[in-house]
Amino acid sequence: MALSRLNTFTTKSSLFRQLPQNAKCLSNLILGEPSGPSVKTPIPGPKSKEMIAELNTIQFANTVIYFTDYNKSIGNYIVDVDGNVLLDVYTQISSLPLGYNHPDLLKVLQDPDNQRTFINRPSLGLFPGQGWPQKLTTSLMSVAPKGHTQVTTMACGSCSNENAYKAAFMWYRNKQRGGAPITEEENSSCMMNVAPGSTPFTIMSFKGGFHGRTIGVLSTTHSKAIHKLDIPALDWPIASFPRYKYPLEEFAEENKAEDRKCLAEVEEEFERFNKAGKFVAGVVIEPVQAEGGDNHASPEFFQELQRITKKNGAALIIDEVQTGGGATGKYWCHEHFHLPEPADFVTFSKKMLTGGYYSLPEFSRLIVCAIASRPQQGYRIFNTWMGEPSKVLLLDKVIEVIKRDNLLSIVQASGKKLMDGLMEMSKRYPQHVKNVRGIGTFCAFDSSSAEKRDEIVAKLKEKGIQSGGCGDVSLRIRPALVFQPYHADIFLHQFEKVLKKIKTV
Amino acid sequence: MALSRLNTFTTKSSLFRQLPQNAKCLSNLILGEPSGPSVKTPIPGPKSKEMIAELNTIQFANTVIYFTDYNKSIGNYIVDVDGNVLLDVYTQISSLPLGYNHPDLLKVLQDPDNQRTFINRPSLGLFPGQGWPQKLTTSLMSVAPKGHTQVTTMACGSCSNENAYKAAFMWYRNKQRGGAPITEEENSSCMMNVAPGSTPFTIMSFKGGFHGRTIGVLSTTHSKAIHKLDIPALDWPIASFPRYKYPLEEFAEENKAEDRKCLAEVEEEFERFNKAGKFVAGVVIEPVQAEGGDNHASPEFFQELQRITKKNGAALIIDEVQTGGGATGKYWCHEHFHLPEPADFVTFSKKMLTGGYYSLPEFSRLIVCAIASRPQQGYRIFNTWMGEPSKVLLLDKVIEVIKRDNLLSIVQASGKKLMDGLMEMSKRYPQHVKNVRGIGTFCAFDSSSAEKRDEIVAKLKEKGIQSGGCGDVSLRIRPALVFQPYHADIFLHQFEKVLKKIKTV
Repeated sequence: MALSRLNTFTTKSSLFRQLPQNAKCLSNLILGEPSGPSVKTPIPGPKSKEMIAELNTIQFANTVIYFTDYNKSIGNYIVDVDGNVLLDVYTQISSLPLGYNHPDLLKVLQDPDNQRTFINRPSLGLFPGQGWPQKLTTSLMSVAPKGHTQVTTMACGSCSNENAYKAAFMWYRNKQRGGAPITEEENSSCMMNVAPGSTPFTIMSFKGGFHGRTIGVLSTTHSKAIHKLDIPALDWPIASFPRYKYPLEEFAEENKAEDRKCLAEVEEEFERFNKAGKFVAGVVIEPVQAEGGDNHASPEFFQELQRITKKNGAALIIDEVQTGGGATGKYWCHEHFHLPEPADFVTFSKKMLTGGYYSLPEFSRLIVCAIASRPQQGYRIFNTWMGEPSKVLLLDKVIEVIKRDNLLSIVQASGKKLMDGLMEMSKRYPQHVKNVRGIGTFCAFDSSSAEKRDEIVAKLKEKGIQSGGCGDVSLRIRPALVFQPYHADIFLHQFEKVLKKIKTV
Repeated sequence: MALSRLNTFTTKSSLFRQLPQNAKCLSNLILGEPSGPSVKTPIPGPKSKEMIAELNTIQFANTVIYFTDYNKSIGNYIVDVDGNVLLDVYTQISSLPLGYNHPDLLKVLQDPDNQRTFINRPSLGLFPGQGWPQKLTTSLMSVAPKGHTQVTTMACGSCSNENAYKAAFMWYRNKQRGGAPITEEENSSCMMNVAPGSTPFTIMSFKGGFHGRTIGVLSTTHSKAIHKLDIPALDWPIASFPRYKYPLEEFAEENKAEDRKCLAEVEEEFERFNKAGKFVAGVVIEPVQAEGGDNHASPEFFQELQRITKKNGAALIIDEVQTGGGATGKYWCHEHFHLPEPADFVTFSKKMLTGGYYSLPEFSRLIVCAIASRPQQGYRIFNTWMGEPSKVLLLDKVIEVIKRDNLLSIVQASGKKLMDGLMEMSKRYPQHVKNVRGIGTFCAFDSSSAEKRDEIVAKLKEKGIQSGGCGDVSLRIRPALVFQPYHADIFLHQFEKVLKKIKTV
């Protein structure tokens, strides 16, 4: 579907009108989508409540929003067990590339040859299946960030980051060794968690960042106390991430100063930790801090961060777990930044269906060479499964559909529609909609307080919109890649209904 | 299939005869299994070599043993892309419960309703699907260790352990607080990785243990230097795991003394760390140290360990990632130990297809109550996916088949056959087969050196047996649950051919 075809439905006048009459025929990316949301019961409804109570007997289930009917959910619409139909702009915490029950993905499952891929899960580092290199090539490598020729698959976002950190540590130590062989003391000491085999190396992260919840990456996560409270943490450097004033064009100077302040902190932390012998092997950063509140930073900030990181001999690890896979209108959000050189690592998961990371060739090479006595020994970045072929099989189809249906163009068009609409709302309801920001459909705004934000999310649900919060006061919009400008209209229409009813404190 | 029926094929005389003529009709647990292994080319063969070279261009692939034809692999037989057919007693590092292409699992994939489960991966903590509590009940809860009423699903073994540790930390801190509310200082300090919000708590682990490779659990892994070298590690307590002399009946006194020595170390480490304020919140241990060399310990050791752990107010975390799921003849290996009370946590993955952990009710309850100001707040043990319903769907069928086909009885019979055969080999070839040990089909022996062990693994492959090493000098046997006494015959037959040709150094 070309952009021009989409544009016929995205005239300004349509923005706040009633739901379009021709809704059904417009959403032809996925046949069978309803014409709009419909809410029949309070949410969670009686059936959901019953199931939550049931689940609560075997695990803590009070986080459950509602039970979902995944047979009836379709495209951009999530259907709950009480029959409520919601336009989903949260999409399982931004992890559904093509929405629900995409027909092309169903076809993948119906192919008998493919079915075997789902029941014969290999240990990919030992016994990969026939066709695995080709499958990696047509899927992950076909959308690799420029300059990235290497990919390692993992199961989820946390372990993708954990393993990128580990590869950075090995690479850094190898540089430090300068070709000297591993000593017996290194081998024996690491078994007892002490130097010299266990290194005092660190990863620098940013306030507000989120990189996962296993104990290593949790030390680089700083978005909410609830994620970290009571858990031991590593003493690793933490710098400030820019916090901009909006609208950007009005605060250009202040925001540039903010960049400089944060970059100066990065330099200081490098110096402080390197001087103390706690060498900074890597810097991890999200292109947009998502969980932490959709905090954006300028291309110039990222360009300069790359320069400082390189100058200090560390690896730049760009965490695209939430931003990757197309929602910003490019496969990788950091492509918007025009970095002078490729990042050292780009990690992914969520919309990519498989976890993993891209890396520059030197990281594969140096990890291996680190074992001087057995240069071909591997097993350093390794685990039982190393990801899963069935995820890559599905991803392969997702990427084919993205290309075939020009979904990145659709994201750009829908994103423009969303952003224009949100900007308009921020003018009409400035007390509730502040600091509108976004790239593609990866959009957010701030409310006046956590309570107001939660109220908006709750009232949107009553109007048939599933959204989600992030940070302290932000609401994030994370639709699937099949979210069209027409869907943005529906969202904005319902959103305004909510805003009209929210009281100013 | 009842044991009596199996026993007709497991007479002693069959042990070292030629491959049984009636091979095909015996292996009727999975139709279509070949009558035995057949090797046509060196392994890896020419096609595998080509594919390894291809894969090496996009990732480090030198760990690959061969490329596998997962369409042709069936039951206990793995078929490589060069047409070699191997009896698989390694089963993807012990992660295949029912071997390859089990017909009942294929049927799960052929059901259109089930197919949707594979393409609509939910965020299980927010939007679980209809029927999820029932599916957990019929699968995971139906085989829960005695006393365990709570289960939390995860994606893999590492994150199962990571999250069990985190739950133990929260629980321990909550006990320390004694009902006092969370302070603002705790909330703000944890965001910067410092006390009091970030705790100095520790997890005690054992030399030779393996609990995964993400940075937190890697600090409790002590099986091979290659896993740990260059990676920062937490200063956590490490005690010795018993190393027994075999045969056990000859060294009963020495081995009891070994238990006492190791348990004394546990007590010492508790005292040392608790005194230093680095409170030990949990003790993690495998029922059999698998990756570390199949090190077994006595039921008495585990019983006493539980007593000491409880006395010190810590949680006992039993890591059944490799031992769980039936290979020891019970669902959970630690059931062989007759612990006085349930373990606090039992973690799993691999043969269970989904990762996760069972825990006692107090851990769910106390995690929640820890947030005094919002007693119902969750999100503490949480991530985007929290495991995956499609894995539980497959596990549900696996458990049904285990029960229907009496696979635990088969494991017991096949295990006896294997152990008898290995003991016999250790008498005939004492220079190559030492310290035979096992529970169910979870068997191993030591060779005289790492080189000899590697040579045996390689030569077994030439004879059509896929096995694997562990520890420094051990060879582990990890067949699927559909491995019958008849398959043990084939293994032992080929094994003896290999032993005859191995030279004594």
